[in-house]
Amino acid sequence: MKLATYKDSSRDGQLVVVSRDLSTAHYATGIASKLQQVLDDWNFMSPQLQDLYEALNQGKARHAFPFEPSRCMAPLPRAYQWADGSAYINHVELVRKARNAEVPESFYTDPLMYQGGSDDFIGPCDDVVVASEDFGIDFEAEIAVVTADVPMGATPEQALEGVRLVMLANDVSLRNLIPDELAKGFGFFQSKPATAFSPVAVTLDEVGDAWDKGRLHMTLQSTWNGRKVGMCEAGPEMTFNFGQLIAHICKTRNVRAGSIVGSGTVSNKDWSHGYSCIAEKRAIETIEDGKPKTEFMKFGDTIRIEAKGKDGLSVFGAIDQKIAPTVAHSV
Amino acid sequence: MKLATYKDSSRDGQLVVVSRDLSTAHYATGIASKLQQVLDDWNFMSPQLQDLYEALNQGKARHAFPFEPSRCMAPLPRAYQWADGSAYINHVELVRKARNAEVPESFYTDPLMYQGGSDDFIGPCDDVVVASEDFGIDFEAEIAVVTADVPMGATPEQALEGVRLVMLANDVSLRNLIPDELAKGFGFFQSKPATAFSPVAVTLDEVGDAWDKGRLHMTLQSTWNGRKVGMCEAGPEMTFNFGQLIAHICKTRNVRAGSIVGSGTVSNKDWSHGYSCIAEKRAIETIEDGKPKTEFMKFGDTIRIEAKGKDGLSVFGAIDQKIAPTVAHSV
Repeated sequence: MKLATYKDSSRDGQLVVVSRDLSTAHYATGIASKLQQVLDDWNFMSPQLQDLYEALNQGKARHAFPFEPSRCMAPLPRAYQWADGSAYINHVELVRKARNAEVPESFYTDPLMYQGGSDDFIGPCDDVVVASEDFGIDFEAEIAVVTADVPMGATPEQALEGVRLVMLANDVSLRNLIPDELAKGFGFFQSKPATAFSPVAVTLDEVGDAWDKGRLHMTLQSTWNGRKVGMCEAGPEMTFNFGQLIAHICKTRNVRAGSIVGSGTVSNKDWSHGYSCIAEKRAIETIEDGKPKTEFMKFGDTIRIEAKGKDGLSVFGAIDQKIAPTVAHSV
Repeated sequence: MKLATYKDSSRDGQLVVVSRDLSTAHYATGIASKLQQVLDDWNFMSPQLQDLYEALNQGKARHAFPFEPSRCMAPLPRAYQWADGSAYINHVELVRKARNAEVPESFYTDPLMYQGGSDDFIGPCDDVVVASEDFGIDFEAEIAVVTADVPMGATPEQALEGVRLVMLANDVSLRNLIPDELAKGFGFFQSKPATAFSPVAVTLDEVGDAWDKGRLHMTLQSTWNGRKVGMCEAGPEMTFNFGQLIAHICKTRNVRAGSIVGSGTVSNKDWSHGYSCIAEKRAIETIEDGKPKTEFMKFGDTIRIEAKGKDGLSVFGAIDQKIAPTVAHSV
C-alpha cells in the first residue's frame, strides 16, 4: 500500500491512503490519524489500511478524492530517528579522489553513517529555505526506509525484516559549511538542514522484485532546473544494503519503530548515469579538469527527484522543490 | 512544576505531576497523557498542569500517590531531537591536552555539538545495557533542557526564551569505540548508546535564581559505585549557555517543540571538584603520570547523578543506574 500525510496545520498532519497510480486518496480516519501510530502498532493497523487501499484501487472507497502531492507533508513530518548512511562507496571514492585522499580499507566493510535531525522534515513540494546561497546549496537524491522495532544486536538479516516502508529523500546539504564542521570532529550539524521526503511511502510489495536483498533496484531520476542530470541505478552498486545499515545502528542500541534510515547519495561508477548530487559532479570535474565548474544551487532553482516502475508510473510521487531564501520575520 | 513519565508498558508512558519535594505524584489524566503533547501545546496545557501541581504541593490532590523514581521512564521516553553540546571547554581542553592536541581557536567561539539518537531513551533507574565491557563504558553527567519551537535564525537571546524544562542526563559513552568512529569523519554513532534522563524535568521557576543567563548554577554530584567522584559546578564554567547551543542548531533549521539539548560533560578547571565522566579522570592521570590508571566501568558498577537545591533537597531526583550485559534473546 501507499501512505501519505496531508497538511492540516497540525504538527503531524493527517494520514491518507493513496491509490497505486497516485490518482486518488482517502483519509485513514477511523483507523489512524498519524503514520507514527501505525508504525507503533503495525500488526493491528496495517491490515485495516490495506483493506482501505484495496477498496481505493478498485474505485470502491466512498470518500476518495484526487491526490495532490503539493498538499503533502513528509510521510513522517517528524520522526524519532533519521540515520543516514553513505552506502554507495562510489560516491565516497569520487569525493575523496577529487581531494587526493585515500578511501580507508575499513570503508568497504564498515558502513559510514551519520545521525541527522528529525524534528522538522519538509514536504515533497515545500521550498528548501536557506539563509544564504553562500552556504553551497546541494540536493542529495536517496532511498530511505522506515523501520519497525529492531533490537540491539540484530544481525543484518534480522534487521532487514524490520523494513516497513520505502520512500525517496532529498537530504539537502550545505556544502560550504561541511569542511569546517567535519574538521571539528563531531560530524555534520549545521551543514544538514531539514530533509524532504517523497509524497508517499510504500510497503515492499508495491515495488515487487525491485526490492531484492535489501536494495531497491530502480532508477533514481534527478532533474535540476528542468534538466535531467541523474538517472542513477539504486540497486546493484549499493555497497551496504538496508539490513546492514540498520544492523550498524543496532550494534549498541535498540532501533525503535518509525526510525528512518537513508542510503546516502545514489551513485554509479559509470558516469554516463549522471549524478544524484552536485558535489559528485564537481568531484568528477575536479578529477578531469583540476577544478569544479558546476556551481551549487541558487535561489529559485528547482530539483525534482522521482523513481518509476517498469510500467513507467511514478512509484513514490515526485519530490519537487524550489530553493528559497529565508524571509525576515519577527519572533 | 515537576513532570515525570511513569512506565505503563506503552512507548510513551503516562505523564505524572510530581510534588516539589518529590514525595508524591498524580497522574495528569484529563489534561494530557504524554509529555510531548504538553510541549506541542504548552500555553494551553501547562497552566492546567500547574494548577494540579499546586494542589499536589498543598496535599489537596485527590488521587496522589507516593512518587517512585524506579517506575519512571525518561521524562520524554523518545523525542524528535537530542542534540548534545560540549559546552564546558575545560573538558575539551583536558581531553586534548592528554593526547598532546591543541584546542582550535574556533572552539572558544563556535559550540561543538553532535546529533544524538532519540528514539529509545532509558529511564533514570534502568540498567545501562552494553554488549561488552571492552567497549569502554563511561558515564557523562550533564544538564539538559527541553525546548519549545524555536525558528531558524533565532539569536541566542531569542533561543533562550525557548527553554521549557530542565533535567539531568547520563549521556553514556563507549570510549573505546570513539577513536575509530570519529576517524571516519561523520561523528559519533555506535559510541553513543541510549541516553538516560533524571526522574523529573522541571520548569525554570523551580530552580529560581540558580537559572541565570542560560546556565544552571548548581552542583552536579556523580557517585560511582557509592563513592562521590564529582561535585562539579555546572554554572560558571559553561562556556556556551543554552541559548547559544539552541541558536547553533537554529542557524540552518527550525528547532521544534520537545527537542532536547544537552550541555555536554560538566567540567571545572579546579580538579578538586572531581569529574563528571571517567574519560576526564583518565585525561588528568595521563597529564600527571603519562598514562591513565582508572579503568572504565564494569558490569555491576553503579552510577548516581543528582543535583540538590540550597535546601539540600534533590531537585530532579537521581539518575541511579547499573551497568548490565545484554541478555541473549531470540528475535
